[in-house]
Amino acid sequence: MKDIEPEEMARRIWLTDKIRQVLWNYGFQMLEPSPVENLETLEAKSGPGVRDEIYWFKDKAERNLGLRFDLTVGMTRMVANRFDLPEPIKISCIGGVWRYDEPQFARYRYHTQWDAEIYGAAEPTADAEIIALGSDILESVGLKDHIVKISNRKLVEGFLRGLGIQSQNDLDQLIRIIDKMGKIGAEQAEREFTRAGLSKDKVKRILGFTDIGGEPGTVLGELENKLPKGEMIHQGFKELSGTIDRVESLGKKHRIKIDLGIVRGISYYDGTVFEGYDRDGEDVGAIFGGGRFDKLCKIYGKRDMPATGVAGGFERLMLSLERKDLFPDTQQSPQIFVVTVNETVWNEAVKIVQQLRGQGIRADYDLKQRPLSKQMEYADSLKVRIALVLGPREIKEGSVRLKDMKTGQEKNIKLSSVVDEIQKALQ
Amino acid sequence: MKDIEPEEMARRIWLTDKIRQVLWNYGFQMLEPSPVENLETLEAKSGPGVRDEIYWFKDKAERNLGLRFDLTVGMTRMVANRFDLPEPIKISCIGGVWRYDEPQFARYRYHTQWDAEIYGAAEPTADAEIIALGSDILESVGLKDHIVKISNRKLVEGFLRGLGIQSQNDLDQLIRIIDKMGKIGAEQAEREFTRAGLSKDKVKRILGFTDIGGEPGTVLGELENKLPKGEMIHQGFKELSGTIDRVESLGKKHRIKIDLGIVRGISYYDGTVFEGYDRDGEDVGAIFGGGRFDKLCKIYGKRDMPATGVAGGFERLMLSLERKDLFPDTQQSPQIFVVTVNETVWNEAVKIVQQLRGQGIRADYDLKQRPLSKQMEYADSLKVRIALVLGPREIKEGSVRLKDMKTGQEKNIKLSSVVDEIQKALQ
Repeated sequence: MKDIEPEEMARRIWLTDKIRQVLWNYGFQMLEPSPVENLETLEAKSGPGVRDEIYWFKDKAERNLGLRFDLTVGMTRMVANRFDLPEPIKISCIGGVWRYDEPQFARYRYHTQWDAEIYGAAEPTADAEIIALGSDILESVGLKDHIVKISNRKLVEGFLRGLGIQSQNDLDQLIRIIDKMGKIGAEQAEREFTRAGLSKDKVKRILGFTDIGGEPGTVLGELENKLPKGEMIHQGFKELSGTIDRVESLGKKHRIKIDLGIVRGISYYDGTVFEGYDRDGEDVGAIFGGGRFDKLCKIYGKRDMPATGVAGGFERLMLSLERKDLFPDTQQSPQIFVVTVNETVWNEAVKIVQQLRGQGIRADYDLKQRPLSKQMEYADSLKVRIALVLGPREIKEGSVRLKDMKTGQEKNIKLSSVVDEIQKALQ
Repeated sequence: MKDIEPEEMARRIWLTDKIRQVLWNYGFQMLEPSPVENLETLEAKSGPGVRDEIYWFKDKAERNLGLRFDLTVGMTRMVANRFDLPEPIKISCIGGVWRYDEPQFARYRYHTQWDAEIYGAAEPTADAEIIALGSDILESVGLKDHIVKISNRKLVEGFLRGLGIQSQNDLDQLIRIIDKMGKIGAEQAEREFTRAGLSKDKVKRILGFTDIGGEPGTVLGELENKLPKGEMIHQGFKELSGTIDRVESLGKKHRIKIDLGIVRGISYYDGTVFEGYDRDGEDVGAIFGGGRFDKLCKIYGKRDMPATGVAGGFERLMLSLERKDLFPDTQQSPQIFVVTVNETVWNEAVKIVQQLRGQGIRADYDLKQRPLSKQMEYADSLKVRIALVLGPREIKEGSVRLKDMKTGQEKNIKLSSVVDEIQKALQ
């Protein structure tokens, strides 16, 4: 169980605002599916195996329920019966998801994700749009040096089918091994392929396939020769090159690298897939990822719509931003602290505090009415920027003492124009 | 299970921003406790009876866990061992809470709350501060005509003890009946008091007590005569009048009404208690409420701090705002939709879209590249404000047609200054 402390919270609020603005700029409308779903809704997407990876339980009416483990399921369920919405439907969500992680430590994990989905557009333009969106979200938070690795599920599936692997179960299993190759390494992957019953030759050919990649300009040309023929591979190639064309229109071609090792682990992807990485921080893992899932709507509702989407985790993104010191100063502390010399000026002090607050300035005072030095200590511990010192003499003179808590500099300002003066001082 | 649709989401985002700004202005730092707590943490505050009212379950390691039913428990747990934080500690949270509601329909309910707590200040100034905060949150969202009904638990407890009720269980039970009197009515309350074993005379005296209320200026003077003597009542009176004094310093006395029928149902309150109401919408119920809970920190940690806090539900607040039509236009739709006459201008159109997005303007185009009339239809259904129509002729002339989707008015603007022109048109 993870609490979010104020310093981290301030950064999350900043991040949420930034990401939301880019989502809006791209025409995505925010919504939020219920955090609790029927267990069968969660299983429909990923099979009963998902039970081991999520929070689920029986409610008092003996229904099986689960906490959402991603936002895509709920968002898809929300639109799958909405015949009133014109296509394409562009929706997005920022919210918490729960995954049961490392059961040996009995830990539950709570993560925050941003997620954007497009329903009702089979065109590669839609895939390009969400890739550009992901890239611009990273741009907007200052993570300028990132790449998006792209491939297509039809390519890998067509290739594996060409090797004689036909059952969907076997295909899914091999795709999951390819997906984790980056994490477990080629040697371990080789062992897992062999354990799955593949011959040495086939393992070698798979490793050769997943190794293909590079600049789209070069690789697209080579692919036609390197890949075996076949309807599925042809279709995958068309989708991939179409998406890259559109990414170029959107001004993002320089962000793209083809990488046939990118497959995404979840079984519902069936077309273009991609993952975004911080270029010097690939060890953190993908900071966003997504792809096309044309068959999911049909599972949840009557409206059969093609779909493509992208999601990113807050925690990894924050790690990348922290490493590069890209967070701005997201202080939540009061900017102004009004210090009273004694009780006689209390009412005047509180009045000033309320005036400042009314102008959108973070202002505070000592609720405990302690002696002056204690008030200063407290203001200092809160990292307040400016202290206003008010005493009977100041009030008589119609002034108040302004102290810069960083430099220690002091000056007197007029009591009658205190809000204006403070606004100037804070600029 | 409740999904939040885009229209409601836009209003929630607006509301969150407004409330957060007031919380910050008042010097509260945002944080967020874990949504999942150990069941015993949740029970510590409210007793094992709480199991019937919340989501709880065993995890795979056989631990009892529960989803938070309020934010106070988690926030208090977070600070109860933090000896490093200087007092008073002012923290706040906006987040979801879960309550098991109306089990006959097997429904789970998810609500959003805002919550602000002050730890480490026993002074009535702290109670006044959170009352002023609650009032200013309502002001900031436009709910100008509201009142805060205030009382003190020590008054009611002292009064009940004076009637001979001594056990904490009995006191808690009677206080819960008083708490729901507004909902169930005096007659039903009378029946419940009688069922609890009270004589007719005692019931009458309780109803007389809870009926006391009115403007603080008048009522405070009368109270000294009306109330029985005793240490507890004396202390309660001192706290109540002290809080009202401070509320006056904070400029909020006109918002306050004394109402001895206000007790708050939860058993951990032990001092000043209050509830905020929309003046013409009391049927909605309290839109915020809170009070002093000096003994709660000790339950969760080693740091024994007095505490006082306030919380409000988003759903009731939204209902009040909707009734009075106080929400601003919180459209999430694209402001600009770029329409293409044919495919030859596609790249130019997408370039304009990306420029607008880069300037923080919500801009979109047709991902499906449909014919002009279909694009217009789609833009219209999205409630787009301005359509930019781009064709080969326009590009040759270095211009683009701007169409106001509301008035139907059109004009040509220069392609080279399209961003500037749009920014002007949106003002």
